[in-house]
Amino acid sequence: MLSVFSDEHFMKEAYKEALHAFEKNEIPVGAVVVCKNKIIARAHNQTETLNDVTAHAEMIAVTSASNYLGSKYLPECDLYITLEPCVMCAGALFWAQFRRVIYGAADIKRGFSNIEQRILHPKTEIVKGIMAAESEELMHRFFDKLRS
Amino acid sequence: MLSVFSDEHFMKEAYKEALHAFEKNEIPVGAVVVCKNKIIARAHNQTETLNDVTAHAEMIAVTSASNYLGSKYLPECDLYITLEPCVMCAGALFWAQFRRVIYGAADIKRGFSNIEQRILHPKTEIVKGIMAAESEELMHRFFDKLRS
Repeated sequence: MLSVFSDEHFMKEAYKEALHAFEKNEIPVGAVVVCKNKIIARAHNQTETLNDVTAHAEMIAVTSASNYLGSKYLPECDLYITLEPCVMCAGALFWAQFRRVIYGAADIKRGFSNIEQRILHPKTEIVKGIMAAESEELMHRFFDKLRS
Repeated sequence: MLSVFSDEHFMKEAYKEALHAFEKNEIPVGAVVVCKNKIIARAHNQTETLNDVTAHAEMIAVTSASNYLGSKYLPECDLYITLEPCVMCAGALFWAQFRRVIYGAADIKRGFSNIEQRILHPKTEIVKGIMAAESEELMHRFFDKLRS
């Protein structure tokens, strides 16, 4: 059984957001922001819906979490994201100074770590691979659907 | 005399946006997006006003330009920005596929080129140094004001 406060528990919530994106024909990526074991922001990719390349799940989640806390910086928050952040999002996570960034599937092509590991804030702990298989499978399902 | 469609002309418009930011006690960075010699978006840094680290001038300008054109991609657009974009913004400019990115002052500490030149889209032409002195001076004036 999953402990309520485990990384797997919160990643499941991020995955639910990715499923929402999938249903809206958006590239299925989901995120939640957790502060003191509470989810304070949920978001999924909305680049198609909003016609905006900046509307990645992480960007919306950062704006939403800052709005909730009334704080630009989020050093007591953890971001769960089903896919490795791109360079833009990693840059945003740097500015927000997250305590931890936990991601699922690696993004071989556009993930920030292709460019440089040190884009994230030096104080931010990185955890990867949580529910990677499920998140990857959802991405494949999306692109298969797109091609069919 | 400045030709109407010169880089200096449009950078002056970006600089006016930076002045607006300065007046609002925001780090003074301004941007305009130009498409077919017409300014289709103007923005300045609003991280303090919106309490949001993602509210850089470039990010707001991209969202605004996409909204105006009804297009996620901006391959016929040029972005003028008074300061070298950070990694987050460079990542956004990559996704938007700007035709040209023209910036003023270099950002020695946080500019994207400290990490990697190839963050920007390979098709994007980069021009730097336009009105660099004025934009730099405005930044210095801002930080002097902050410290006094």
